[in-house]
Amino acid sequence: MAKRQLELIARKEKRGRSVKKTAPKLVKKAALKPVVRLTATDLATRQREISVSEFFTKNRHLLGFDSPAKALLTTVKEAVDNALDACEEAGILPDLVIEIKEISETRYRVAVQDNGPGIVKAQIPKIFGQLLYGSKFHTLRQARGQQGIGISAAGMYGQLTTGKPIKIASHTGSKKPGHEYEIQIDTKRNQPVIVSERELDGKEPEPDKEKRAVPRVFEHGTRVELEIEATYKKGRHSVDGYIEQTAMANPHASVMYVAPDGERHEYPRVAKELPKPPLEIKPHPHGVELGILLKMLHETKARNVVSFLHGEFSRVSGPVAEEIAKSAGLAVSMSPQKAAREQAESLYKAIQATKLMAPQSNVLSPIGEELLIEGLKKQVTADFYAGTSRSPAVYRGNPFLVEAALAYGGGSLPGDELCTMIRFANRVPLLYQQSACAITKSVIQTTWKNYGIQQSRSALPLAPMVLMVHIASVWVPFTSESKEAVASYPEIMKEIKLALQDVGRKLGLYIRRGLREADAEKKRSYIEKYIPHIGIALQEILGIDDKRKEKVCATLKDTLERSRKND
Amino acid sequence: MAKRQLELIARKEKRGRSVKKTAPKLVKKAALKPVVRLTATDLATRQREISVSEFFTKNRHLLGFDSPAKALLTTVKEAVDNALDACEEAGILPDLVIEIKEISETRYRVAVQDNGPGIVKAQIPKIFGQLLYGSKFHTLRQARGQQGIGISAAGMYGQLTTGKPIKIASHTGSKKPGHEYEIQIDTKRNQPVIVSERELDGKEPEPDKEKRAVPRVFEHGTRVELEIEATYKKGRHSVDGYIEQTAMANPHASVMYVAPDGERHEYPRVAKELPKPPLEIKPHPHGVELGILLKMLHETKARNVVSFLHGEFSRVSGPVAEEIAKSAGLAVSMSPQKAAREQAESLYKAIQATKLMAPQSNVLSPIGEELLIEGLKKQVTADFYAGTSRSPAVYRGNPFLVEAALAYGGGSLPGDELCTMIRFANRVPLLYQQSACAITKSVIQTTWKNYGIQQSRSALPLAPMVLMVHIASVWVPFTSESKEAVASYPEIMKEIKLALQDVGRKLGLYIRRGLREADAEKKRSYIEKYIPHIGIALQEILGIDDKRKEKVCATLKDTLERSRKND
Repeated sequence: MAKRQLELIARKEKRGRSVKKTAPKLVKKAALKPVVRLTATDLATRQREISVSEFFTKNRHLLGFDSPAKALLTTVKEAVDNALDACEEAGILPDLVIEIKEISETRYRVAVQDNGPGIVKAQIPKIFGQLLYGSKFHTLRQARGQQGIGISAAGMYGQLTTGKPIKIASHTGSKKPGHEYEIQIDTKRNQPVIVSERELDGKEPEPDKEKRAVPRVFEHGTRVELEIEATYKKGRHSVDGYIEQTAMANPHASVMYVAPDGERHEYPRVAKELPKPPLEIKPHPHGVELGILLKMLHETKARNVVSFLHGEFSRVSGPVAEEIAKSAGLAVSMSPQKAAREQAESLYKAIQATKLMAPQSNVLSPIGEELLIEGLKKQVTADFYAGTSRSPAVYRGNPFLVEAALAYGGGSLPGDELCTMIRFANRVPLLYQQSACAITKSVIQTTWKNYGIQQSRSALPLAPMVLMVHIASVWVPFTSESKEAVASYPEIMKEIKLALQDVGRKLGLYIRRGLREADAEKKRSYIEKYIPHIGIALQEILGIDDKRKEKVCATLKDTLERSRKND
Repeated sequence: MAKRQLELIARKEKRGRSVKKTAPKLVKKAALKPVVRLTATDLATRQREISVSEFFTKNRHLLGFDSPAKALLTTVKEAVDNALDACEEAGILPDLVIEIKEISETRYRVAVQDNGPGIVKAQIPKIFGQLLYGSKFHTLRQARGQQGIGISAAGMYGQLTTGKPIKIASHTGSKKPGHEYEIQIDTKRNQPVIVSERELDGKEPEPDKEKRAVPRVFEHGTRVELEIEATYKKGRHSVDGYIEQTAMANPHASVMYVAPDGERHEYPRVAKELPKPPLEIKPHPHGVELGILLKMLHETKARNVVSFLHGEFSRVSGPVAEEIAKSAGLAVSMSPQKAAREQAESLYKAIQATKLMAPQSNVLSPIGEELLIEGLKKQVTADFYAGTSRSPAVYRGNPFLVEAALAYGGGSLPGDELCTMIRFANRVPLLYQQSACAITKSVIQTTWKNYGIQQSRSALPLAPMVLMVHIASVWVPFTSESKEAVASYPEIMKEIKLALQDVGRKLGLYIRRGLREADAEKKRSYIEKYIPHIGIALQEILGIDDKRKEKVCATLKDTLERSRKND
């Protein structure tokens, strides 16, 4: 193959050259290979492995790098997600600095710095130079990152579009030296390549003389820098919008953002405390498939099936584990590692048939109704606000909860347009793929007419309204790796609709009260307008004096007012 | 860690048991680990690699396995895609047999058999037991499969939900023995595990005695069998609908389908010839990013930069290659393998600045206007049909083309509902994620009112209409690995809209003609209705005889008819 290719190239080269001298326009196109009558052997030679990096290079729209504007947003988002997660895991109130510098109209340098715990030296290359490497995939705990793809994908995109490596500086504490790395990805092997590496003692001069918003020297934390092909736009779907909404959903973080135009946006810390730390849980037995159960049985270190069930799952007490084993017809002392497929299947069926407590619900960290409304108030000036934070529910064994808030009316919201939606998942704003998202679908499927709001079939409600929905879960199911839209699990959509109905009812009350008041106001104004005329008419007909007339008028007004109010 | 876990389990076991005897309800919940104040070292211990199989097991909704009904469809789809691709690559008119058998209400056995070239023995385990392994990823050629994920993912889903391996029987020709394998995936390593393996001599008795729709003995081809957790539903989004639409877009295939209820559906071959075979092309220079160029430079076997450009890309003749090298300031004889990032960047800029012919457009295999309309006619009885097949265009260097057809009016289509959409990509029906698809977005963004069709804002047109759109490309960008929706590249959306406008204009003419005719009919009926009365009135006023009256009436009618027609 390689030899044939070489010959082909050589032949083409020759042809190209010889023809060139006489009639350059006659140069033939590169020959096309028609694909006909291939045998199984021919086909076999074409089979090969695809590394996950190659896969995502070619499918980079799956990761959110489908346009230059989106690439800028995604890069910032992945770095910020990691920064916030790291700070919170270490129990540190986050101080973030985000800087975007324009290098040319289509090229930007993005830097994100946090005051987190830093990253130990040995881990830096893999975290930033290998796809599918991370700390959150194998756990069940509410976090922004979950896949081990994001930041290394951003690095890969930088490498793809500018050829430049991703640069990481990290300090794990004031007494230890920091480290700076430049990393690329060997996409064929999905492995990091260290381009440069040096120790930072915290005292050295800035390596480049450019002025920066914050010093590059810091006590602990991580600074990530990338150069990428991108375009910068303002607006709701822009980096600016993303950072604003991030600050809104993370009131415990202080964010400083230097935009490409040099403008500084500061979002000071609003909440003085970290949100309740989310807890890691073990899988719930009802959310585990037969294949996973089989794998867990074979990989466990438990000595018998009862300790396996009790130790590897949540909500399975010792007695319950014994009960399950018995109803599956398995000996309590059976070694899980030796379980055959059929035994695993009996166990699986026994688990499904056993009533168990729902997964722990206190492991999630909601934003809370109050902070939701506070956040909305900062974004939108409106006449009416409502919010709700629902109790946790479960899909496929994973606890999740939904929060919703809305802002309605007031001059700043356009009345003749579809409502504006703000979506969050684990406190991360979702800016793209709105129509594919379970949140949007739930909004569309909610009957807003019940709350006095116009809505066409299969459309968002038509109202001067901003709707905000947050879903928090130990594992948010997204429709793609770029994490832009929540997958439409029925359990999740049901909870979103319940949350929307809750804020919808509150809005309906307000709107109806508004309508009633408007109606009342109209009646009252009629009364005030016509009663004097009636008085004059009565005076003329009955010949009463002015005093009498005033009295009659007052009585009439009073009677009518009372009857109006009783309407 | 492992030791600590064991201790924990032991402690819990003990606690569970001792409590059980006295008061079972007091058993404590498994202790939750609060996540606070972790250091960089703590965090480092949690970092680990994630295999692509593990990733997709947890994110299996990305592959189309998010509900039992969809899982059945996706499994059939992946097997059928492969079967059709294999037959066409080998130049064989496809004969497919699809059997779905109900094992229980939630468990089905799917078997898909083709008459393709078969698969050589050594390739079977990897093709069916490893994700990201395939023949189509590294090529640019119109095919149904492109990622090397589909069928192994279906196998993984079967393993996950029923614990059963995927079974493959394959014959590469009558004189060679066939092979049968049972394969599972080691998800931790993403590697195939051979459960069983045997030679088939084509004469042995059926291994299981069940009656089958077709014999399992065949000359060449592949039979894939899986047992999966699924549910079977009828309707447009069902397997039945998928197979019907597949037959519609592949008139050269004969498809026999035995549904779970035992019903046989036969879709005989309509076109007697294979479609024009799609051709494989080299990448177009304008669609290649800097990072890819750099990688190609380092990996090429070409001896100089000119032969590199000419040999590895399409549309670059020898002279053009020299021109590019010169304008990049590179020596014509430079070794590509030694190119530095800066040199690659100059080359990249020079390529972008050079005017090149658009990618070859004759490499795609459209369905064609005629067969599109034929297909629609089979699905829908309507009053009016129109179709269009556009010339190829280019996105990110990849040629693609769009075809559209519509059926309108007639009793069988509901007039007060949104139009029905049928989407295809490389002849594969897309049944899910309609709202996330570039096709749907383009339909919504087209102004159907121009063609006499009602449409609300941000909604599909409201009409008794079926819209069919097909996009063919050497690389279709999907919004997720499940290949259910086309990503919204602007170039693609533009072409879809142009195709829709084309069929829309044809429909508009029809609708307007219909309106005009209805109008004419009304006028004509007025003339016929009132002229006799005018005649009688004239007779009375002027006192003319019957004959004269008739003549006046005829003249009047004639005059009015002519004036009406000139309207």
